[in-house]
Amino acid sequence: MYSIESMNILQEWFSKLPGIGPKSARNLAYHLIEMDPEEVKQFAQDMYTARLAVRHCPVCGNLTDREICSICDDDRRDHSTVCVVRDVKDVMAIERGHEYRGVYHVLQGELSPFEGIGPDELNLASLYKRIEDGGIKEVILATNADVKGESTAIYIAKQLEKYEVTVTRIAHGVPIGGELQNAGDETLIRSIEARRPY
Amino acid sequence: MYSIESMNILQEWFSKLPGIGPKSARNLAYHLIEMDPEEVKQFAQDMYTARLAVRHCPVCGNLTDREICSICDDDRRDHSTVCVVRDVKDVMAIERGHEYRGVYHVLQGELSPFEGIGPDELNLASLYKRIEDGGIKEVILATNADVKGESTAIYIAKQLEKYEVTVTRIAHGVPIGGELQNAGDETLIRSIEARRPY
Repeated sequence: MYSIESMNILQEWFSKLPGIGPKSARNLAYHLIEMDPEEVKQFAQDMYTARLAVRHCPVCGNLTDREICSICDDDRRDHSTVCVVRDVKDVMAIERGHEYRGVYHVLQGELSPFEGIGPDELNLASLYKRIEDGGIKEVILATNADVKGESTAIYIAKQLEKYEVTVTRIAHGVPIGGELQNAGDETLIRSIEARRPY
Repeated sequence: MYSIESMNILQEWFSKLPGIGPKSARNLAYHLIEMDPEEVKQFAQDMYTARLAVRHCPVCGNLTDREICSICDDDRRDHSTVCVVRDVKDVMAIERGHEYRGVYHVLQGELSPFEGIGPDELNLASLYKRIEDGGIKEVILATNADVKGESTAIYIAKQLEKYEVTVTRIAHGVPIGGELQNAGDETLIRSIEARRPY
C-alpha cells in the first residue's frame, strides 16, 4: 500500500483533535503539505508558544496568558459576585452577552462519579478560599442544566451553606426567541414551575 | 471583550484550514491548550518536519518523503502504463482499490482559464519528457468528469497525438452499487452511449 510516513504521522495528529474524522484528517494533512514551509513553521511555533503561554488563572481557573486573567484583573467588574461555571467555554459564552459584570470561578469539570470525577478533581478549594478571604456576597451557580451540572450545583450549594454568601442558580425555562412547542418537556415543566409575576 | 491573544492567534491558524469554521477553530484551540505541553511540542515538530520532508516526486509529481516516490520506485509495477490524475488525492483513491498496477502522473491542477491556470501551470513538461524517454505504451487520462477535467483530458490527448502512445480515457457511467434512478441525467446518457456488448 502506497503511503508516506510523515503524512501518516501528520494525519494521526489531526485525527486526535475533536471533531476531526479520518477523511478531514487526511485533507488537513494534504493542505499543510501544500502550504508555504515558512507559514507551517510559524503555525507550529505559534501552537507551541500558545500552549506554553496559556495557563489557568490562579484566582478563578479561567484561561489566561498573563499572571491573573483579564477578568479577575479588571477593577471595573463587580468582584463581590462570582459566577461558577464548568469550563472556559462557558465564560466565553456569558462574556459574549456583554451584560454580566461580575467575575467567574471555573470548575474545570463537573461531578461525574462514573468517570471517577469527585469534588477533589474540581477547582473548588480555591473557591472556598476566595469566599473565606472575604468580599464575596453572591455565588451564582451556572453549571449545566443536566444531571452532572445539577449534581455539581447541589453539591456546591451544600458546601457553601456554612459561609455568609447568597447562593443562587441561573434560571431555566423556554429559550428566548424559541418556540414554546419546540422546548423540551422538562424545560416546559421547569418554566411553569418557576413562573414569576408579570 | 475578554480574549487571550495567543488563543486568538491559534484560532486564526485553525480557521485557515479547509473545512474548519470559526466554532471548530475555537474548539481546536481550546483542545490544544488543554493538551500536555510535551505532546503539543511533538505535534508542532512533526508538522514542520513533515512539511520539510514531503515534496513532489521529480518523476511523476506525486507526494513523497524520499528521492522519488514509492510507486515510481517499485519494480513490480508496470512502468509502461501511466495514469494521469489531477492531484495526489486521486492517486490515493485509485491506490485504495489495490487493482491498478501501472504508474501515475500527477498534474497538480487542471486547466481553468478563468482562474488563469493554463497548460504551463500544470505538471505537463515532465509527462512529455517521460514519453520521449521511451518505455511508455499507454497514457490513461483519469482527470475528473467535469468541465475542467474534460478540457484538461482533451488538451492532453491533443498534445500526445504526436507520440507513439495509446491514449485512453477512464470509463464513465452508473456507479457500481448505485441505483440507476439516482444517477444523474448526464451519467445515464453517457452510460447508454458507451454501452458495451454483454
